[in-house]
Amino acid sequence: MTIAHNKDATPAYTALCAHWQRMYRLGHVLSIAGVDRETLMPSGGNAARAAAMAEMDGLIHGLRTQADLEQRLNAAAEESLDDDARANLREMHREWFDANALPGELVERKTLAAANCTHAWRTQRAANDWPGFLGNFREVLAIAREEAEFLSRQSGLAPYDALLERYEPGMRGATLDVIFGNLKTWLPDLIQRAIARQAQHPTLVPQGPFNDAAQRAIGPELMQLLGFDLNAGRLDESTHPFCGGVPEDVRITTRYSTDNILQSVMGVIHETGHARYEQNLPREWLGQPIANARSMGIHESQSLSFEMQLARSPAFVGILSPLLAKHHGAQAAFATDQLTRLLTQVKPGLIRVDADELTYPLHVILRYEIERGLIEGEIEADEIPEQWNRRMQDWLGLNTRGDFRNGCLQDVHWSEGLFGYFPCYTLGAMYAAQWFATMRRAMPELDQCIANGDLSPVFDWLKANIWSQGSRWPTDELCRRASGETLNPAYFRAHLEGRYLA
Amino acid sequence: MTIAHNKDATPAYTALCAHWQRMYRLGHVLSIAGVDRETLMPSGGNAARAAAMAEMDGLIHGLRTQADLEQRLNAAAEESLDDDARANLREMHREWFDANALPGELVERKTLAAANCTHAWRTQRAANDWPGFLGNFREVLAIAREEAEFLSRQSGLAPYDALLERYEPGMRGATLDVIFGNLKTWLPDLIQRAIARQAQHPTLVPQGPFNDAAQRAIGPELMQLLGFDLNAGRLDESTHPFCGGVPEDVRITTRYSTDNILQSVMGVIHETGHARYEQNLPREWLGQPIANARSMGIHESQSLSFEMQLARSPAFVGILSPLLAKHHGAQAAFATDQLTRLLTQVKPGLIRVDADELTYPLHVILRYEIERGLIEGEIEADEIPEQWNRRMQDWLGLNTRGDFRNGCLQDVHWSEGLFGYFPCYTLGAMYAAQWFATMRRAMPELDQCIANGDLSPVFDWLKANIWSQGSRWPTDELCRRASGETLNPAYFRAHLEGRYLA
Repeated sequence: MTIAHNKDATPAYTALCAHWQRMYRLGHVLSIAGVDRETLMPSGGNAARAAAMAEMDGLIHGLRTQADLEQRLNAAAEESLDDDARANLREMHREWFDANALPGELVERKTLAAANCTHAWRTQRAANDWPGFLGNFREVLAIAREEAEFLSRQSGLAPYDALLERYEPGMRGATLDVIFGNLKTWLPDLIQRAIARQAQHPTLVPQGPFNDAAQRAIGPELMQLLGFDLNAGRLDESTHPFCGGVPEDVRITTRYSTDNILQSVMGVIHETGHARYEQNLPREWLGQPIANARSMGIHESQSLSFEMQLARSPAFVGILSPLLAKHHGAQAAFATDQLTRLLTQVKPGLIRVDADELTYPLHVILRYEIERGLIEGEIEADEIPEQWNRRMQDWLGLNTRGDFRNGCLQDVHWSEGLFGYFPCYTLGAMYAAQWFATMRRAMPELDQCIANGDLSPVFDWLKANIWSQGSRWPTDELCRRASGETLNPAYFRAHLEGRYLA
Repeated sequence: MTIAHNKDATPAYTALCAHWQRMYRLGHVLSIAGVDRETLMPSGGNAARAAAMAEMDGLIHGLRTQADLEQRLNAAAEESLDDDARANLREMHREWFDANALPGELVERKTLAAANCTHAWRTQRAANDWPGFLGNFREVLAIAREEAEFLSRQSGLAPYDALLERYEPGMRGATLDVIFGNLKTWLPDLIQRAIARQAQHPTLVPQGPFNDAAQRAIGPELMQLLGFDLNAGRLDESTHPFCGGVPEDVRITTRYSTDNILQSVMGVIHETGHARYEQNLPREWLGQPIANARSMGIHESQSLSFEMQLARSPAFVGILSPLLAKHHGAQAAFATDQLTRLLTQVKPGLIRVDADELTYPLHVILRYEIERGLIEGEIEADEIPEQWNRRMQDWLGLNTRGDFRNGCLQDVHWSEGLFGYFPCYTLGAMYAAQWFATMRRAMPELDQCIANGDLSPVFDWLKANIWSQGSRWPTDELCRRASGETLNPAYFRAHLEGRYLA
């Protein structure tokens, strides 16, 4: 696989590749400074770091919006390119469009409003201060609507679709309506049935305190078991766990809780899923946009393949169980059946990031419906709490009235002006189910392999079908090539019913 | 203190300040990526990091060599600037000269030859392979001579002085000849007398193994005692200890040895000296060259003020002694008098970085005389071992014949093409002695204060006279303002005789 067979015959395209490689290298340095900020930087360094990273951001943005790029992209399109190069050019064009679609003054207004709103949100959330938040948020929403209108005119997509396109290219609100609409018809009932079944067996909770050093030791061991290349990445600690760095040096983080051993363990597994995608993006293309991960939904499908599909399967819990006992001493809650029960426990709650596999999609659909209404002007900012409460009540039976902190103030996304991102979480869960259904079809003995400690069939399949493909294909085509069909939510339903009702 | 009173009246100068601030911010990001490389980066990330940092280096170099800068510097010189702004412009001009003096092709040849030579040196040193090293080094030396000639023509300085100017502006080979010439007349004899005196009292060596966690705990405690702002910097681990990062977030490193507790302790004290200089550079000027540390020699005078002047004084050892006992348990070698003896033990050896305070200057003078001869064409590359051995024999009574590994192959400087740097180490030791002599003149009770655990007089003096001054004054003027006279090596002699003969 090469990007351009004959450099002399494709001068415009070849020069664009060099331009993108330059941005990739500068982005590497910026990314590492960002990882350092989250993991090591003392708070006194914050102001200087923010200024330095903003300068660097601006510099890279300047390269992305260079005046001659449109003309150079057009010139490259006239050249004789092979299929890979043409796919790379398609992704260059997409990145160029994203960076250039909005006028600079709109981007500046958005950045400022989002920074104000998010900064205040940190204290307003703690203070349950919805009116205070609303004061800033109206401005963020007004700009987001303007942005969506602007992108809509440029792209010909509907306003919400134009936002969605940045995170999940090719996905449309109309498709989400069908997928999520279907989910709503059976998921709340499935949740109730699962809860009723689980009520018959009490769940043991592992008893802490869990030794700090033992928790730190288990992370790299798990990562190695999951195929993470510790020579090309590492595990550190941060307040909010993430997967960052660069494909050649992937940094994941976790946080440790003295009482909750599984928080760090499952967090490491989740981030390792993201990390293996990054570590196995096509090496020969690194530096070019064709080598990037396909989309946010596909990225999440990797973390959830690891965390939900693989790690919560009874076969894998059979491996996890002795590992926990080895590092933290044996206890009844670590027994395979107990641990499986705990890892699949269904418990409707107010907080999305703490939600279990079964209730999580409803948190996402709630946000999707509200944010789409907000962007399309069908919902106004001050109606959010009522819209929120109605859905929490209907779908999970929870009253959130007056509890803004654990309701509509819980996420940072909207204060950041990030609309169109939430659906990716549940799309990721659906894709992950589809990947595993495909694997099991091809390898009926898959779970036996996993139970025997041989995870290679899972990794081989993901590497061949997802990781190594980067952004070679549009998402639907990637999915079709991997699984024989485009996204089919039936696999997700079958997975959930199999796990929670069988 | 302001940099420009009236921005409208000084448009060229004001624009230059913005240009330098931009480079400072980009340099921040690059610096942090460099710290990460030395402290956290797994080896698999090296190739991508090298490419990314080279791209960033090139970008910043492009800003330093921007075609219009000379004209803009000249325009600023015509503007009505206050004294601070004029000093800043002087430093801008110096940086501009350094970056622009050499033709690009010479810089490229030098970079390539140095990289080749240093890469091979890592294995050649271990293999004691002098002829192999010589093969690459001849090229490095030829380019360094060319470089010195070029800089000499541009600056009007003698060739070796033109190299020295980059690290120790204002210092000249003629001055070094006088200073080092004088040192040679009395130091070898002083060493012999000190050795004879010390032979009368056996020195106890602390007995390990020293617990890893206890070693890690003592570092930040020492740093805090020495005034390091842990909210604006941190201590990490690396193969070669260094002080890096940025003034707003200073990173120092150490390495731990199970057997040698003092290696890390004295290393941390040394780097903390560098770090406090950086942390206390003038805040209101940060981002401008006037805020930079004055020179390599002055920087070293800070690390050596901490490590040699302060930390090896009996008053400070009285503080260190209980601290070691607290972290590692009491033992006879930790008693104040024993520890003082150990920390001032004189032992001629082959390796510069392991040398004690008394023999260290001879290692430096040896290198100075040889490198000056090399640059001025009076010594050829193949004569180095003989030149080396003669001096080691004459001054320290050590035979290095045939032992290249622990002789002329021990340092990385020359393979890197770094000529003119070595003198800074001993200039730093001399300046440090001068600072402490000045302090004691003004505060006869200084040592009593230190013994009582009050180090603030030392820090207050260094802050007022050195740290806060940045590059406000040329080095001689800085020294005169701080101590009433320019560099006077008599203080160094008095310090050594007081410590080793009294």
